[in-house]
Amino acid sequence: MYKFHMPTKIIVGENCVKENESELILGGRALIVTGKTSGKRSGALDDVTKVLEKNKIPYHVYDKVENNPDIESMAEGGKFARECGCDFIIAVGGGSPMDGAKAISVYATNEPKDGSDFELYDIFKGEYKNKPLPMVAIPTTAGTGSEVTPYSILTLHKEKTKKSFTCVDCFFKTAFLDGRYTVNLPLQVARNTVVDAMCHLIEGYTNKKASPSSDYMALEGLRIIGRHLDKLKDGSFDTCSCTELLWASTLGGMVISQTGTTIVHSMGYQLTYFKDIPHGMANGYLLYEYLKRVDKKRMAQCIYALGLEGLGELKEYLEQILPREQDFAEDELIAWSEISIKARNVASCPYPVTKELEIEIYKNSLL
Amino acid sequence: MYKFHMPTKIIVGENCVKENESELILGGRALIVTGKTSGKRSGALDDVTKVLEKNKIPYHVYDKVENNPDIESMAEGGKFARECGCDFIIAVGGGSPMDGAKAISVYATNEPKDGSDFELYDIFKGEYKNKPLPMVAIPTTAGTGSEVTPYSILTLHKEKTKKSFTCVDCFFKTAFLDGRYTVNLPLQVARNTVVDAMCHLIEGYTNKKASPSSDYMALEGLRIIGRHLDKLKDGSFDTCSCTELLWASTLGGMVISQTGTTIVHSMGYQLTYFKDIPHGMANGYLLYEYLKRVDKKRMAQCIYALGLEGLGELKEYLEQILPREQDFAEDELIAWSEISIKARNVASCPYPVTKELEIEIYKNSLL
Repeated sequence: MYKFHMPTKIIVGENCVKENESELILGGRALIVTGKTSGKRSGALDDVTKVLEKNKIPYHVYDKVENNPDIESMAEGGKFARECGCDFIIAVGGGSPMDGAKAISVYATNEPKDGSDFELYDIFKGEYKNKPLPMVAIPTTAGTGSEVTPYSILTLHKEKTKKSFTCVDCFFKTAFLDGRYTVNLPLQVARNTVVDAMCHLIEGYTNKKASPSSDYMALEGLRIIGRHLDKLKDGSFDTCSCTELLWASTLGGMVISQTGTTIVHSMGYQLTYFKDIPHGMANGYLLYEYLKRVDKKRMAQCIYALGLEGLGELKEYLEQILPREQDFAEDELIAWSEISIKARNVASCPYPVTKELEIEIYKNSLL
Repeated sequence: MYKFHMPTKIIVGENCVKENESELILGGRALIVTGKTSGKRSGALDDVTKVLEKNKIPYHVYDKVENNPDIESMAEGGKFARECGCDFIIAVGGGSPMDGAKAISVYATNEPKDGSDFELYDIFKGEYKNKPLPMVAIPTTAGTGSEVTPYSILTLHKEKTKKSFTCVDCFFKTAFLDGRYTVNLPLQVARNTVVDAMCHLIEGYTNKKASPSSDYMALEGLRIIGRHLDKLKDGSFDTCSCTELLWASTLGGMVISQTGTTIVHSMGYQLTYFKDIPHGMANGYLLYEYLKRVDKKRMAQCIYALGLEGLGELKEYLEQILPREQDFAEDELIAWSEISIKARNVASCPYPVTKELEIEIYKNSLL
């Protein structure tokens, strides 16, 4: 038995925000959730505020979403939304603002209080009373796929890792994919994020929960990324190729909505939490060691969809575009395995995973 | 710019109705909309009523949906739903019950009255006040794709054709795809309906509105059908292959939700209206003449996705599985062209269409 559910409307193309005003405006007062730089640099924030002003929709900007936002700051965002009286959210940015917006939308309508029936961490249980605020998403990186998933991945300091919550009310109403917003990304950010999308597609295709409704999306996403591998190396993007990569990343989101990720993601979280290594880069470091252990046929299908000749070529390619700037110590890796072996997506891995195997994968990947 | 929106949750697999009770039950009193035979023969009706009885949900059965239902009988169905106090609909059957359920769901909450602001034919304008009843769908043929489209195609006697209305509220909440319900279809019905799905996929892929979000679905659907062409010829289906074909047909529905159909469909409607030729068979008669006029590359991609060597092989195959039992007169074809040239989907055709061209296609296909 398999299921597919993705209620978000996806609109793809240049100027799609400006040309679809009624899809952007879901209420009478907007909260724009964005990072410190992404919304402005991409030009997306400017497009959004122009449409809101033209339509006389008051708005407030919450631009305090850090990379890998923690749960506490999202509760702050929810408080801000309540205080401003916002009735819908526009998320502008990469995975952090989009995942953050999902948490903010829950906290906005459900005030967390110690000792009440909705405390701060209850968001991870999906237990809240009131419907979250409706939201739209404007991704400014082609990586996360968060614009079409019901997942929000937040930093949880008390468990020293990132942790996800899933909530069907947190699907965005509409996602706007416009390559104009990603074409000026710093090259390394573009690389990291596309590698994240690649990991979603590969982890989905090789996943224990892979099905006919996720497989064809995964291969299509990989074929698109495959056509852009050279551009990802030399940075020769144009708006058109960026829109295509956004679509590939959205396909990745639709895939992992069905399958979830695997240990590439759960092990990567430690690299981000403890070493501040960007999420996609962290996944990219671990991808080869994960992939060489999966079913040979599925592995080969991923490689060929990417237009590569073998797994070794993928390894080389990833080494070329993902620089290594840090050293790792063996005892760190052992400590990280203790945390990551507890992650839920260990169970979606196509082969049995033990702490020892994770240590081996960390070592082979990082030492 | 292209868009994708398909909010229906799809659940695929044997016994998916019984194993997902909470997805089936959307209210406190059900209206089951079905045809005279399909619900019973397929076993789907029995599965549904068992779940409803187990959960003590009262239900009423409206099994008066004829093939190619007309607008008047759908208004009757709406009246029946109102009188019984049903608050949700379970559609069980092929395209007719599913399309019918969409119209009934609108009429159930919006009583049509002559001289009021909602008259019988206003449904085609999509202008009604109250939200239609929520619905789920259980297809018992692998063809229509109606389970994932916002379209309902009804017979309109006053225009002597079939006509569609589109309504985003008419997406089913959930569609249950179980090959157990199609495995015992009469072989010719199975053939006709799969050919309908094939047409959706081909008309979508060669459509003027084809886009990256419809193309990969179309080719995937054609690949699946291609793997079953032999079975469709000799009738050697099993539950598993039937579930695969249901998924292919659902892909066809998702494709035409984005692209619409072309003249194969609008010209086929006359064969159904005037000659009572089953919908899929009617499309199949016209497919070759349509397809030989489209862009060669797109045409070839469809053919190869089906696993065939050339357009001629498709023509032969269709002739083998779709018998011709009626004769047609030239003046009939000319009269039909007068009607079908007015259809909306003429504009989605990848080449210019005139009445003269339609006459030529009719003649080459039927005389």
